[in-house]
Amino acid sequence: MNRKMILHILGSILIVEAFLMLPSVAVGLIYAESATTSFILPIAILLALGFLMRWKKPQDTTIYARDGFFIVAAAWLLMSLAGALPFYMCGGFDSFWDCFFEMVSGFTTTGASIHSNVDALPHCILFWRSFSHWIGGMGVLVFVLAITPLSEERSMHLMRAEVPGPIVGKLVPKMRDTAKILYGVYSIMTVVLVIFLLCGGMPLFDALCNAFATAGTGGFAVRSAGIPYYNSAYIEIVLAVFMLLFGINFNLFYFILIGKAKTAIKSEELHWYAAIVGVSTLLIGINIFPLFGNTFESFRHAFFQVASIITTTGFASYDFLYFPAFSQHIIVLLMMVGACAGSTGGGLKISRVMILIKSFGQEIKRLFHPHAVTVVRLEGKAIDKSTLRATLSYFAVYIMTICVSVLLISIDGFDFTTNFTAVLSCVNNIGPGLGKFGPMSNFGEYSALSKILLSFDMLLGRLEILPMLVLFTPGAWRKN
Amino acid sequence: MNRKMILHILGSILIVEAFLMLPSVAVGLIYAESATTSFILPIAILLALGFLMRWKKPQDTTIYARDGFFIVAAAWLLMSLAGALPFYMCGGFDSFWDCFFEMVSGFTTTGASIHSNVDALPHCILFWRSFSHWIGGMGVLVFVLAITPLSEERSMHLMRAEVPGPIVGKLVPKMRDTAKILYGVYSIMTVVLVIFLLCGGMPLFDALCNAFATAGTGGFAVRSAGIPYYNSAYIEIVLAVFMLLFGINFNLFYFILIGKAKTAIKSEELHWYAAIVGVSTLLIGINIFPLFGNTFESFRHAFFQVASIITTTGFASYDFLYFPAFSQHIIVLLMMVGACAGSTGGGLKISRVMILIKSFGQEIKRLFHPHAVTVVRLEGKAIDKSTLRATLSYFAVYIMTICVSVLLISIDGFDFTTNFTAVLSCVNNIGPGLGKFGPMSNFGEYSALSKILLSFDMLLGRLEILPMLVLFTPGAWRKN
Repeated sequence: MNRKMILHILGSILIVEAFLMLPSVAVGLIYAESATTSFILPIAILLALGFLMRWKKPQDTTIYARDGFFIVAAAWLLMSLAGALPFYMCGGFDSFWDCFFEMVSGFTTTGASIHSNVDALPHCILFWRSFSHWIGGMGVLVFVLAITPLSEERSMHLMRAEVPGPIVGKLVPKMRDTAKILYGVYSIMTVVLVIFLLCGGMPLFDALCNAFATAGTGGFAVRSAGIPYYNSAYIEIVLAVFMLLFGINFNLFYFILIGKAKTAIKSEELHWYAAIVGVSTLLIGINIFPLFGNTFESFRHAFFQVASIITTTGFASYDFLYFPAFSQHIIVLLMMVGACAGSTGGGLKISRVMILIKSFGQEIKRLFHPHAVTVVRLEGKAIDKSTLRATLSYFAVYIMTICVSVLLISIDGFDFTTNFTAVLSCVNNIGPGLGKFGPMSNFGEYSALSKILLSFDMLLGRLEILPMLVLFTPGAWRKN
Repeated sequence: MNRKMILHILGSILIVEAFLMLPSVAVGLIYAESATTSFILPIAILLALGFLMRWKKPQDTTIYARDGFFIVAAAWLLMSLAGALPFYMCGGFDSFWDCFFEMVSGFTTTGASIHSNVDALPHCILFWRSFSHWIGGMGVLVFVLAITPLSEERSMHLMRAEVPGPIVGKLVPKMRDTAKILYGVYSIMTVVLVIFLLCGGMPLFDALCNAFATAGTGGFAVRSAGIPYYNSAYIEIVLAVFMLLFGINFNLFYFILIGKAKTAIKSEELHWYAAIVGVSTLLIGINIFPLFGNTFESFRHAFFQVASIITTTGFASYDFLYFPAFSQHIIVLLMMVGACAGSTGGGLKISRVMILIKSFGQEIKRLFHPHAVTVVRLEGKAIDKSTLRATLSYFAVYIMTICVSVLLISIDGFDFTTNFTAVLSCVNNIGPGLGKFGPMSNFGEYSALSKILLSFDMLLGRLEILPMLVLFTPGAWRKN
């Protein structure tokens, strides 16, 4: 590894994080909150550390794919540790690990909270909490790429490690421009959502925070009662539609922007996404009908919950623990599926599920025509063998991660449903689970060890496993 | 497909099944039970159908790999349907589908029962129920291969479709001789077990039935109280040791027989198997200590439950629903792992788990040495790419099967833990689950539809998915 170069890039990221804290400081000043001072020390530390790490400009600026993984994993870990400081300074959390859990949950856009009464938190802290979703949704490295000049190859290594999905494509020849476009689309859509929410009568502060949580598909609420607090079908439908939009591959929005709407509409992944959302909404809507006795209410809640879970946002318009078993089981399945690749959503990603299902179809076909050359196609293009293999092994590692995590947190003594869905919820960056920790409760009851493990799971899920493991491989720390 | 040849082979299998019912008839005659007559019609139907199907000797005796899959799947389905008839004729079951579930559970060596009071069943029926474990454990086709002359290639296709595990090897140049050796080892070990059980004071009838259930890693009990009925540490330890022995790849016993004990002891899969059993027993033993307050008792029950679950037998010496959460979670993990390939046990198989874990190690290694040629080794030999890919996609299909099944049976309204572990238990051919259907209860409460689905899952698991799916692929029924 190129230690100097890695230090240099990590330094830049810490400085960027210091600047990202400024809007929260502004919010604190506007509300004249004393908690605003909680940001002073963290910002000072970030700047000092950042400039120290950037002190010596490295002469050799080469980085390899594994360095990219290492940087991304280290950056997310450092940012979460530093980002947890304002929570810790402000008080109201039980321990530093609770703050760390909350911050990781923010950056990874999970939205699982250990805090039972967010109404009591100051605005500046709530803002930082929700803003972290917005930062983490598109990725910090992508942001840094958009503002720093780095060579093409290096940018690609970083981008690949941070952007989720089986295949990472460039929109335009230069990676830096791609990053700019992505952040541009992201910002514009967020602003549009804020306007829609304001039109529904939501206060500006809530509108901003909820828009961040929706755009990043995070799901932190700024009211203890969650989304039902606003008691508005309009707001729920707006949020559901925007959750679904942010769950679409951002490349498609770019295609629409440059007038290639037809290409966007033809996307195979989009069709599967729409089909899964449609069928799930229909099934849950029918299944929960006896609960509401009203078609509009049933489908409103079915649609909201499906949109929230498949995009891995984790908002809830209704405590789905009261849904019938069948609906709850659909929700568990949707937790794994996740949103489209290249979106801000987590989970396995629709395109991976497509590859898995299609590769299985090939396996059957090969049985009937042993000598035929069979390929798995995605978006009309043949998937090469290494992508197919990577997808299959990603799935295996993903399941193994879930198994090991469930076993480890079971030491706390909670039941299987609770543990299994808690891990599923964290690995897929959703938020709520079933059993003890549904959408209207929080993860506070887990032990410190389990919270650290679940934080690790959230990072594993957001960065798609490999980067985090590279960070803990001794070989990665060795000098070239 | 070669319809005539397929009919011919299936005909032979039905005739063999008629003969396999004779020992149960003998038991009925010895106990002078009126239920013995329940076997008359089924035997008549099997013989009539069998001879009818074998009427015309096919001129073209070629069969392809897919035909092998088709035959195996069709044979298991037909045998289960016909084997359920004596249960149905004798009465005591609620419906034919309950009988079918019980029979599939027998042949697939699952051991999940829908019967709440087996004490009330006649001996001949209990014998048939337990004997089906013994038949299904090693495989019906393997048995037919051992007694019928078939060309090498054809035998291989059948053997491959029925013997579980990622790689099927021949012990001796001729497949027929391999089948004979396997059944020989199997029979001798069963006899030894019967003798051990008799020495423990178990009545002959119970000793035979429990030996069948152990040898096939099935788990049907002949007492409503299950294994605790005998209230003997000796019997439990004998059963646990033999369950573990029947969970070992049978090739290893052959190596020992021909004086190559060293080769057998060196088996990598055996080491992993021993390690997993050892660690699990230790962890559960410590975890359940407060329940018994006695080291011997704790480890006796820990060892028994670990042996029973990892070999997918499903006997219980203690209702593990009373174990602490951590132990229950270990049990769920062991359910998936399963026994060694080429044994009578179900589950994913140790060697598959090894390939999955090692392939993941390779993935990390490749990241550090992108240009190195990396291979996954099993038992010292490099795994070829197609085996690796087949293992990865088997795992994916296995997980997808579980997901879909859990969703479908959730319509019955039971909770997630119950449904998830019920499916896990059926797909891995174990028997008991967690939640509502633990080791001391039965699957009777599920709806008929769920019972049929779970029966299908048991067959999917026993035949390792592909054969059953081939049976339901329209292409498989088409003439060549």
